[in-house]
Amino acid sequence: MKEEISPWESSNVKDYKKISKKFGIKPVPDNPELKENLYFRRNLIFGHRDFDKFLKDWKNNKKTSVLTGIMPSGPMHLGHKMTVDQCVWYQDKGLDTYVLIADIEASLTRGLSLKKSRKNAIQEYLANWMALGLDLDKTEVYAQSNRSVPYYRLASLLSKDTTLAEMNAIYGNLEPEKITSTLTQASDVLHLQLDDYKGNHRVLVPVGVDQDPHLRFIRDLAPKKDLMKPASTVHKLIPGLTGGKMSSSKKTSYIGLNDKPKDAEKKIDNAVTGGRVSLDEQKKKGGKPEECMVFTLFKYYFEENDEELEKRKKKCLNGDLFCGECKQCLKERVSKFMKELKEKREEALNEIDVEKIFEEENR
Amino acid sequence: MKEEISPWESSNVKDYKKISKKFGIKPVPDNPELKENLYFRRNLIFGHRDFDKFLKDWKNNKKTSVLTGIMPSGPMHLGHKMTVDQCVWYQDKGLDTYVLIADIEASLTRGLSLKKSRKNAIQEYLANWMALGLDLDKTEVYAQSNRSVPYYRLASLLSKDTTLAEMNAIYGNLEPEKITSTLTQASDVLHLQLDDYKGNHRVLVPVGVDQDPHLRFIRDLAPKKDLMKPASTVHKLIPGLTGGKMSSSKKTSYIGLNDKPKDAEKKIDNAVTGGRVSLDEQKKKGGKPEECMVFTLFKYYFEENDEELEKRKKKCLNGDLFCGECKQCLKERVSKFMKELKEKREEALNEIDVEKIFEEENR
Repeated sequence: MKEEISPWESSNVKDYKKISKKFGIKPVPDNPELKENLYFRRNLIFGHRDFDKFLKDWKNNKKTSVLTGIMPSGPMHLGHKMTVDQCVWYQDKGLDTYVLIADIEASLTRGLSLKKSRKNAIQEYLANWMALGLDLDKTEVYAQSNRSVPYYRLASLLSKDTTLAEMNAIYGNLEPEKITSTLTQASDVLHLQLDDYKGNHRVLVPVGVDQDPHLRFIRDLAPKKDLMKPASTVHKLIPGLTGGKMSSSKKTSYIGLNDKPKDAEKKIDNAVTGGRVSLDEQKKKGGKPEECMVFTLFKYYFEENDEELEKRKKKCLNGDLFCGECKQCLKERVSKFMKELKEKREEALNEIDVEKIFEEENR
Repeated sequence: MKEEISPWESSNVKDYKKISKKFGIKPVPDNPELKENLYFRRNLIFGHRDFDKFLKDWKNNKKTSVLTGIMPSGPMHLGHKMTVDQCVWYQDKGLDTYVLIADIEASLTRGLSLKKSRKNAIQEYLANWMALGLDLDKTEVYAQSNRSVPYYRLASLLSKDTTLAEMNAIYGNLEPEKITSTLTQASDVLHLQLDDYKGNHRVLVPVGVDQDPHLRFIRDLAPKKDLMKPASTVHKLIPGLTGGKMSSSKKTSYIGLNDKPKDAEKKIDNAVTGGRVSLDEQKKKGGKPEECMVFTLFKYYFEENDEELEKRKKKCLNGDLFCGECKQCLKERVSKFMKELKEKREEALNEIDVEKIFEEENR
């Protein structure tokens, strides 16, 4: 039977506790050092697998890696920012970071040509990753389609360590392209432990909850190849601006990082809020910030100061803050963010050595 | 529904016409030049797919390749000799020849480690191929596990050009390792047409009828990647010495190329013949050469002279040749062949540059 969350469809999870219990995702360890990170502090990263072990290895200066992936189909939007920020955070702490461009997966599961995937990966994604703080000099970026023989060899050999029944139980009924895609992704996470790379060590993969099935699958495979189970942290998925899922196929549901600031502002104007039907009622009953996409955007990205966020929430609950004012403030911050991002992105585009990432070193 | 012939099990086909009709294998073109080859002349190569087109390209000096594979599990036996002889024949005619070592397939479908596969591929197979006439200097030998990124990339991308239903129709129900194995094999046949290799051209794969399902599968895939459909010739499978299938798992059913001549002679002694229950009856009714494994061995390998073969057949049919005498003659030829083969094999083993075949050029 197919599960409620799927790595291949946009998801909108309502009850993270239920999901955690069902799939064995543990609550994030209560580590004061993690609290400096907004996502940990606000419980937006709500769960993990073996992250405690990863933290221990990190503390003990053992070999570690942090790996994240770019699916280069469609536009990059604010929802993707969470993963980037985490990756940058670990990088700033001195950890080895790897960013893979899932162009084989994009070709197999989304029908994109490799050429188009590559172009999109650079212009839409990697440039924004850099604008968001990723230091390319300290990052190993690679494309699946161009990785290496040991990487592909591992993907092939992993096929023996699972069964169709096991895969179908995790993913629903799979066709050959999704079987290949899934095994390729497993090799993304596991190949860093090959002797050709860094040897046995703990790899951390920060994911949104929709990607957790992959982690479960890959963690089952690891010991069969005498590799360590990868660790993961699991974050919440930011809902769509208009309610429901945030989905690339619905433009009004997300703020694209390459959107024009004016368009972004328009989307905020149309976003679902926790406001009441009338100003009078709002004054009386207060708003519902937990249901408000404007508040959610402050919480995830646009209010780093916890006290200020709490103040905003209280004002809303007390009926002292109205949606227009609140939206206006958000629009200003988003506009500023987008303008700065654009500048940094343009700088970044000049810095990216496309040839190096897609070079034919492995032919 | 699974077909009657399977590339993963020993097969014993009774009716080649029926198989040909069912799967669309065409009779070999009546080309006088082919008749110099014993297997063509005696209709042991009984069918083909697009071999006429291959012949035309060859005649017109267009690019062509001949590709064959070594499945490096178990011992190499006389049954394998047919493919080698064909490969050598094309090589002597000046065609580009490729020999792939299917170590990924051996690992996935037979559970052999890559290390064991490689050792066996060299000592049991490649050395015998060379002893049988393969010129290593004119052959590109590669191991699947070590080929190249474009090769693996193609295998991955091919997964999109088929469905589980199509694969199951050809192969029976497949698990992930057989899906991967089949796609890898498809890339073996098709990757030579990539720009990274020789570009678009007709590749010939001489196969036993048990491997024909692979060819049908791969020929369906080729146009989806804008590649030419590979051609094939299809040969009969020599039956087991003791009747039924020739199978590596039944030692008395085959003569291993690394067998001691004495053991080979013993196997011939125990082989099924077309002899009658008594000498008297044999004199009266004559033998049945078409059911006789001794005659079959002469026909396939140990009597190159057609007239002599015909003479032997007639003598047997007329009751003028008895099994003892016939076996004695075969044993002498087999012994001589095996002794010479051993010497050549030992020379060959010194010549093989194992490192070169399995070198880590692609890491």
